[in-house]
Amino acid sequence: MGVAERRRRSADPVGRTVEELETPALVLDRAVAEANAAAMGERIARLPAALRPHVKVHKCAELARLQLAHGAIGVTTATVAEAAAMLEAGVPDVLIANEVVGDAAIRHLVATAGAGDVTVAVDDAGNLERIAAAARAAGVTIGVVVEVDVGMGRGGARDVVGACRLGRAAAELEGVRLRGLLGYEGHCASEPDRATRERATREAMDRLLEAAGRFRDEGLPVDVVSAGATGTFDIAGAIEGITEVQAGSYLLMDRFHAPLVEGFGFALTIATTAISVHDDLVVFDAGRKAVGADFGPPDAPGADGDFAFIHEEHLGIRYPSGAPFRVGDRAALVPAYAPIAVNLFGAFHVVQDGTVVDRWAVRARHGDP
Amino acid sequence: MGVAERRRRSADPVGRTVEELETPALVLDRAVAEANAAAMGERIARLPAALRPHVKVHKCAELARLQLAHGAIGVTTATVAEAAAMLEAGVPDVLIANEVVGDAAIRHLVATAGAGDVTVAVDDAGNLERIAAAARAAGVTIGVVVEVDVGMGRGGARDVVGACRLGRAAAELEGVRLRGLLGYEGHCASEPDRATRERATREAMDRLLEAAGRFRDEGLPVDVVSAGATGTFDIAGAIEGITEVQAGSYLLMDRFHAPLVEGFGFALTIATTAISVHDDLVVFDAGRKAVGADFGPPDAPGADGDFAFIHEEHLGIRYPSGAPFRVGDRAALVPAYAPIAVNLFGAFHVVQDGTVVDRWAVRARHGDP
Repeated sequence: MGVAERRRRSADPVGRTVEELETPALVLDRAVAEANAAAMGERIARLPAALRPHVKVHKCAELARLQLAHGAIGVTTATVAEAAAMLEAGVPDVLIANEVVGDAAIRHLVATAGAGDVTVAVDDAGNLERIAAAARAAGVTIGVVVEVDVGMGRGGARDVVGACRLGRAAAELEGVRLRGLLGYEGHCASEPDRATRERATREAMDRLLEAAGRFRDEGLPVDVVSAGATGTFDIAGAIEGITEVQAGSYLLMDRFHAPLVEGFGFALTIATTAISVHDDLVVFDAGRKAVGADFGPPDAPGADGDFAFIHEEHLGIRYPSGAPFRVGDRAALVPAYAPIAVNLFGAFHVVQDGTVVDRWAVRARHGDP
Repeated sequence: MGVAERRRRSADPVGRTVEELETPALVLDRAVAEANAAAMGERIARLPAALRPHVKVHKCAELARLQLAHGAIGVTTATVAEAAAMLEAGVPDVLIANEVVGDAAIRHLVATAGAGDVTVAVDDAGNLERIAAAARAAGVTIGVVVEVDVGMGRGGARDVVGACRLGRAAAELEGVRLRGLLGYEGHCASEPDRATRERATREAMDRLLEAAGRFRDEGLPVDVVSAGATGTFDIAGAIEGITEVQAGSYLLMDRFHAPLVEGFGFALTIATTAISVHDDLVVFDAGRKAVGADFGPPDAPGADGDFAFIHEEHLGIRYPSGAPFRVGDRAALVPAYAPIAVNLFGAFHVVQDGTVVDRWAVRARHGDP
């Protein structure tokens, strides 16, 4: 038995308890994820909009299927690779809520189009033409939505005139099928004050619906009007004319989203081990390469812990009233921002009643084979 | 031909130019990496210390072999998984410059020990005993170095008495072989003022050498006295008694390390595409999931660019004097901190004279199968 084989055997986690996992490990509480999916399904069913959850959060086909089982009409992605991974896993209908630019990326986009419906955002006429040409050459049809900047100031046509110009071009080009509009109110989605968030989201949706009205006036299709994050899904999704919301973070949750929305639990944690304890300092084996620190460090485990440092493989916490962890003790960290933490791991350990029941791949990370 | 097969064919990068790669892409300039490896080899040859470069920087067996070809005596890693990946790839001698704690991690450590020499840091007596017991049970021997806190305040025995107690225990236990001491002057390594850095590094090394002297007095082995980062390798490595330095970032370089050391070029860039251009704003397709933002955003491409935002898949730059990029234009980003950026990708695109000549895997990311 070679080293590789021995390593694989010793590392097989299914059937082990969470406490037995090698750390750091990405742990998905299956019951909490299912409860979150069900809760969103019930809440969406009472709104005019449908749910097309953003899978950049988990990059996981099994979690996408869980969302489909609870009423999602398809999925939203940020990249072609995510779309391809979902289509290959049998998710039938994918919206890429982003511009796809460049010959290689467009070739990749067109290659995915055989496996299901793919729709991509456009905000540039030349890019639209290149997508259409590539689709025609491959004998496929790519759906397109025109992205409108609803105030975030990232992608998207800056005004209704520009959006309509793109819409007309898309309607006339062979190789693409115009499906409607997309806007992302990212500038509203994390506003802490709910009343302010509601007002800002409604203003943003007014811009999107103005474009939708002009599309209708010009006889352009508007089957899809997509918007809505976890912090705004029940605002945007309650507005007549918004056909689908992209909310995705509700499924795993994290410290960033918890103050923005009620009714969803923490399904995602990073299992970690105290590897070094000296005086009031406990060093855990989950650093920037396991939880990320873009959105701040995770909460300190235990009571009365103060964040001290986070390095690539270390998280240091000081406990002024005495270290409550000894070397070898375990903790579960709730990440500040789940999509960043998930993207650092190759797989979820799926846990039910404290036992690992499955291992689900995190797909379509950059540079994956 | 199925979708997966079409996708793979369309994505095969070898033989393409950098401009033809789907972005974001991790690009290694082979000539620069080789020049960096050679330059370090020449500089280390003039110092009393040997080089055992830290491969957490690149997690790449091919790059480790390049370093071995330029005089490195083995490699340093931060995790068992990195050690296992290196040993499986034929790198014969690995120092894990970190504590390895917990049954699963120790099982993994012991499983690697058949393929070459493995040495691990210890700073806790109970953990040392568990490693020794697991090694005995498996019939292997694990090298150990006692970690001494040289002022950084992370892992390591806090004083010489504690270090010697661990050293004596390691010398007496079967299953482990005491090799010496390790200290990491992380609190000095990025001090911008060279004179201050030199003084602080020498003070830190004094603590390590004091422990080494006591080890000798007690008849304990000190074949290894390991320290030294890219910012301090020529300070620590010039001190008699420091047997090896762990410097690793010199090989790829990044914005963080460039001000700290001369003579090494930027071997690593992230290829990106301008996917959305509006007024003075250019949005590139390389965000937090491609370059990371833990250590700040990458430098703005082109002249006169001001950082505007970085999201998961977007980098926004404003150009007050007019956007110099159109949709589809390419740029190369030098990351703020290479080890974070590398860890976001599954592979390097190895480029020579503008053409991709190979694809080298990034190994041992957390949760990899």
